[in-house]
Amino acid sequence: MIVFASFRGRLIARGNEPPIGQRFSCLSFNSVVSAQTILACDSSRHCDNMVSTSAPTPNSSNQAPINPMESLGAERKSPSFPVREMTYFVDGDKEATLLKEEIMLELERDPNWKIDDYPNLSLAEIRERTMAKVRRMADDLLTKSKEQVFQKMAMISVVDPGFWTRFGVHIGLFFGALQGQATPSQLSYWLERGAMTMQGIIGCFGMTELGHGSNVAGLETTATFDKNTDEFVIHTPTITATKWWIGGAAHTATHCAVYAQLIIDGKRYGVKTFVVQLRDPETFQLMPGVNIGDIGKKMGRDQIDNGWIQFTNVRIPRSHMLMKHTKVTREGKVIDPPMAQLAYGALILGRVSMVNDSGNVSKRALTIAIRYAAIRRQFASGPGQVETKLLDYPIHQHRLIPLLAQTFAMIFGAREMNTNYQNLMAQINSEKQENMQALLENLKETHATSAGLKAFCTWMCLNIIDQCRQSLGGHGYSAYTGLSTSYQDFVVHCTWEGDNTILTLQCGRYLVSMANQAKKGKPLPKNMSYLGEFVKSRTHPSCKGVSVEDVCSFKTLREAWGCVAANAIIQAANEFEEALKKGLDKDAAYEQCSASRLHAARMHVFTHLFNRFSEAAEASPDSLRPTLTKLAVLFATHSATQHSGEFLQCGYYNNEQIYTIKRHVSELCADLRNDAVSIVDSFNYSDYVINSPLGCFDGNIYVKYFDLVKRNNPQNEIPYFEKLIKPLLNRSVDSDGGPELEIDQEE
Amino acid sequence: MIVFASFRGRLIARGNEPPIGQRFSCLSFNSVVSAQTILACDSSRHCDNMVSTSAPTPNSSNQAPINPMESLGAERKSPSFPVREMTYFVDGDKEATLLKEEIMLELERDPNWKIDDYPNLSLAEIRERTMAKVRRMADDLLTKSKEQVFQKMAMISVVDPGFWTRFGVHIGLFFGALQGQATPSQLSYWLERGAMTMQGIIGCFGMTELGHGSNVAGLETTATFDKNTDEFVIHTPTITATKWWIGGAAHTATHCAVYAQLIIDGKRYGVKTFVVQLRDPETFQLMPGVNIGDIGKKMGRDQIDNGWIQFTNVRIPRSHMLMKHTKVTREGKVIDPPMAQLAYGALILGRVSMVNDSGNVSKRALTIAIRYAAIRRQFASGPGQVETKLLDYPIHQHRLIPLLAQTFAMIFGAREMNTNYQNLMAQINSEKQENMQALLENLKETHATSAGLKAFCTWMCLNIIDQCRQSLGGHGYSAYTGLSTSYQDFVVHCTWEGDNTILTLQCGRYLVSMANQAKKGKPLPKNMSYLGEFVKSRTHPSCKGVSVEDVCSFKTLREAWGCVAANAIIQAANEFEEALKKGLDKDAAYEQCSASRLHAARMHVFTHLFNRFSEAAEASPDSLRPTLTKLAVLFATHSATQHSGEFLQCGYYNNEQIYTIKRHVSELCADLRNDAVSIVDSFNYSDYVINSPLGCFDGNIYVKYFDLVKRNNPQNEIPYFEKLIKPLLNRSVDSDGGPELEIDQEE
Repeated sequence: MIVFASFRGRLIARGNEPPIGQRFSCLSFNSVVSAQTILACDSSRHCDNMVSTSAPTPNSSNQAPINPMESLGAERKSPSFPVREMTYFVDGDKEATLLKEEIMLELERDPNWKIDDYPNLSLAEIRERTMAKVRRMADDLLTKSKEQVFQKMAMISVVDPGFWTRFGVHIGLFFGALQGQATPSQLSYWLERGAMTMQGIIGCFGMTELGHGSNVAGLETTATFDKNTDEFVIHTPTITATKWWIGGAAHTATHCAVYAQLIIDGKRYGVKTFVVQLRDPETFQLMPGVNIGDIGKKMGRDQIDNGWIQFTNVRIPRSHMLMKHTKVTREGKVIDPPMAQLAYGALILGRVSMVNDSGNVSKRALTIAIRYAAIRRQFASGPGQVETKLLDYPIHQHRLIPLLAQTFAMIFGAREMNTNYQNLMAQINSEKQENMQALLENLKETHATSAGLKAFCTWMCLNIIDQCRQSLGGHGYSAYTGLSTSYQDFVVHCTWEGDNTILTLQCGRYLVSMANQAKKGKPLPKNMSYLGEFVKSRTHPSCKGVSVEDVCSFKTLREAWGCVAANAIIQAANEFEEALKKGLDKDAAYEQCSASRLHAARMHVFTHLFNRFSEAAEASPDSLRPTLTKLAVLFATHSATQHSGEFLQCGYYNNEQIYTIKRHVSELCADLRNDAVSIVDSFNYSDYVINSPLGCFDGNIYVKYFDLVKRNNPQNEIPYFEKLIKPLLNRSVDSDGGPELEIDQEE
Repeated sequence: MIVFASFRGRLIARGNEPPIGQRFSCLSFNSVVSAQTILACDSSRHCDNMVSTSAPTPNSSNQAPINPMESLGAERKSPSFPVREMTYFVDGDKEATLLKEEIMLELERDPNWKIDDYPNLSLAEIRERTMAKVRRMADDLLTKSKEQVFQKMAMISVVDPGFWTRFGVHIGLFFGALQGQATPSQLSYWLERGAMTMQGIIGCFGMTELGHGSNVAGLETTATFDKNTDEFVIHTPTITATKWWIGGAAHTATHCAVYAQLIIDGKRYGVKTFVVQLRDPETFQLMPGVNIGDIGKKMGRDQIDNGWIQFTNVRIPRSHMLMKHTKVTREGKVIDPPMAQLAYGALILGRVSMVNDSGNVSKRALTIAIRYAAIRRQFASGPGQVETKLLDYPIHQHRLIPLLAQTFAMIFGAREMNTNYQNLMAQINSEKQENMQALLENLKETHATSAGLKAFCTWMCLNIIDQCRQSLGGHGYSAYTGLSTSYQDFVVHCTWEGDNTILTLQCGRYLVSMANQAKKGKPLPKNMSYLGEFVKSRTHPSCKGVSVEDVCSFKTLREAWGCVAANAIIQAANEFEEALKKGLDKDAAYEQCSASRLHAARMHVFTHLFNRFSEAAEASPDSLRPTLTKLAVLFATHSATQHSGEFLQCGYYNNEQIYTIKRHVSELCADLRNDAVSIVDSFNYSDYVINSPLGCFDGNIYVKYFDLVKRNNPQNEIPYFEKLIKPLLNRSVDSDGGPELEIDQEE
């Protein structure tokens, strides 16, 4: 059997060396292998020494184990920048930091907010505990300022993403729908009944259906007007029309904002929104004609009770259709609303928050991975030597340090995005909207950039989480070390709020339109100026420098990325034009160049992030600028090595310069390694927020990890020993071959 | 609050168009958003139409929903190749296919092997059900052939990876250790006691410790010889010495193969292996001095009960030390074994199996994603049109079709790897090992290639799983659609059996040594011939062609990839030499060039996979060759676009040729799209193995998905309504401001 061959002689040793299978245990298991072996995986020198014949390090085992806390403490001895200053700068200012610290303390001290036992809770237990947290947050809505609630939700999005979703469904989606779509008298009607504060009403948001997502115009649920009774009849005609993924429907909501096809006298008027009661708030019994079920387990975020809903001819008064925009009269006359392109503005904030979340979640992942790498030791560099820290291996630096740079890029990208958004909304909401055209241009640009940032930042963060998790070796696979669940919760960010791929295409579509504007010599918005300059200058720029200083300066890197992004955009625009020439309609032509649009969006977003990052570094205090500058250059150069083909194709860098950049990436990783622990310290997350024993501030990782595992897994009797194990151990497999046949004896 | 602004006016409509928020709902949620919105995500034309002003498709909702089964059936009407032939070719031959079908049927019919309710089972329930399966497999060991067991385990690795691990711990690791390290009399002693068949003994494998993984020489557990009693004393001296991740220890094992430092008269002799009894098989009580706990929840594979073990001066007879190699006499004299480099061979099979597993798991993921994409419709191309299939969108083809090509590359790469391994082991095990030197060279080459393949194929498969999951839109986040759990189970492959990063470095170290051999004009093994040719030819090759046929032929692509790989290897070798010149020792020099070694390994593995794939295509039957050729070219060209910088830097392709390649990738995706469903059909997995309603063969995805969700989540009362929800709904938050102060009235 396989295992025989593969294990034969595994531990034969040679000379005085320890047995090979022991020296290289991380390689020595055959495919039938247990999770124990996943510990055998940390980056190391000798482990990587497989086919060489260099001597092993038997003496390393004589070394007394190094104190983990001392290992981490040593990293903090001489940071090259003031850590607290960095915290203020990254948070925005000192006040922002103090508010975050207040929120972390508040959550940590609230027994409702215990989170370190999540891995062992059942779906039912998680749902119940989450509901227990909802009340306090509901009261916060009455007692706290918008800024306080916003900041608290942002922190909760790192601490407990599933709660963030469950709470958000009511206030963000259901009440948000009332805000956006109810008439003043409708809104006050629902407010009086506690629709905002959950005093009588808890809402959910009934848009998506089993067979219909993006194309809301294709929803099947119907709302048919009955003129005789002045009612709408809400109905689910098919299985694919079943409302699906409705957060809060399974366990929580009394009411639902239902999206359905308005039908009057057999004519369809498109999808409108109707408030439908689901349950009796006194008994929680389902209302007649309403059928609801639990959608159950998900990859993550089990705190939120997503459900499905089917309506069977449920009648509601006409006044339950939200009529801020489209109105239906007593006679069944439909009055359409005036135009309002400005609604686009509403699409942006979600993206901004998710870009922000990407930075925040990355901060946590890197705090865990870098503190662990500064403590965990594997293999000695020679006989009698202390084992080497993971963080001292160049390859481990290459794994983690560039991710630190990406995290800063997302933080500063999110900050500028948020500022632009605030200005835009102020502009939109100001009574006198002079210069409407400029406003709309600003709107389009902000929308496109936010779409691109949301997609690439959530993808970037997801990669950071898993890279950090893998860098923990086997311990990263445990549910108690904080990154496996983080991945499972975060990954949905890449899908909701618009599938990332679709968002990149929207961004790309805008970039193509900008290219055409530029060709016509029209002015472009500030963020697109690099494209305008590129199109203007008939002669394409290229890097003349040779030294690292010349090749990797902010100025050069900005020009380089601008050149690459402009090149990609123009490429997509040309493909679009060619498709039109071939006679395709506009939409078909855009589909034809979709791969190039996606690529153009990626190059644009990296360029955008680097520009924001480098500007922030330049604007930073003298004490922080050297560190932030190194990180910004690392972001740009590391990303450039990932896309070196683009730089060579547009002729900005030549072969030699690309090699110079690759070398510089290694130099920057080695340099920043010395500040790595101080940098993650500056992220200033408490151990409660980190919620991983391997990332704790004091470095006492093994004791805390062991304690956490024991607390969550008390030693009990094995429940199925008598039933399953004992019979297995005691079984006999003897079987006679049946009776001897005479015919066999005759032979 | 954020939600107000972000929802304000979201549903304001313009002209006769449906409200914007409805047309673009996938974009319209603010960050406080529920999982329902993740349905709103499928790739689509109009959804991607955000900032354009083209007309919406209100009529699409008038379309009767298309029958999903008809949608899928239409895809099977005219495959361009014989599907069953492809199955035989991919499986190896007809017999292999029939055996797989027999195994699938056997598992599907066995009630113990029910798997579609896993998402809702508790950790305890999963553990118990898995134990119930163990017995039947234990009997298989007695009744089935090696090949049957091997194939069954390979299939189980797709169906239930956690069981595969739990069963493998006993037979692969524990019994494998006895096989490899026990003397003949020791082995028969343990065999008599049922150590192989679990009749009296169930084993686990006690190597890794909380603080020690790769560096087994650094393990802390001690085995001290007591001359007076002829016993070893097994002891855990520190917390970091706690045996950790020990699969089967928490619930299952009676005995453990313990790796510990052999100490005699105060002198250390390195790590040896000792059989220690953990539990009384009659009562399952822990033996004196043995303390065990459960490590609990993991990211996946909860079927296996990983545990921790601490020994406190546990005494075992001297004869329980496995002495096939190192021996300890009654007087405490240590006799070291003869050398035996051939043990390297044992390291390879595990990798081969994991490369094989990568192909098998990818087949399943793509079957689900492609069948869904052939059924799911989103947005009509015009008023009154039927909605478009996801698979018809070029961007969706770009997302999935190249992954199909990668899957075939892994399948053929694994097959050749397996053949080489079998030949190698035969060579090793043959009595007369004439030409030992050639054997050792073969061994090194096979080892290095398997290390590289394991790393890059497990990473590739992991990416395929998540890309397929994301391509399902919101449904991919459900635990019932089969890909979220697959990711969580598979991801550990990237860590155990040697952390992928370490394996790439080992491969890279070998490649550097090959470069130096080549420079010295020494012959290289067949798989490395491209490097030898590259070094020999002073003039570097480059592509002269212009047409797609010239630029993307097998011949050209092989030369191109060989050129790129050789270039990367020589680059790493040069960095290594420079480091030596700077005075670093060999190990330090290898660390210095680790990033370049990793890159060289990646380029080598892609080259290797393409060479195997293209050879297989050339050797395939006429009826299959056109399809396999397209897939092989897609693999090579798509991978080339991902690393275009390498091709430009080594001067093999020029800018124009790179653009030609990029265009050809799109052409191949569009072409292969027509056979996509037939290709995944040829993978020939039963619905039981697919275990995802969205990937079922008949295409009845919505009915099966809904049924599965309902079966797993029966509608019950909400348990915490009275306790938590009712008080929330009925609460009052009125609070007076305290007594009126006289001083205030005085003012």
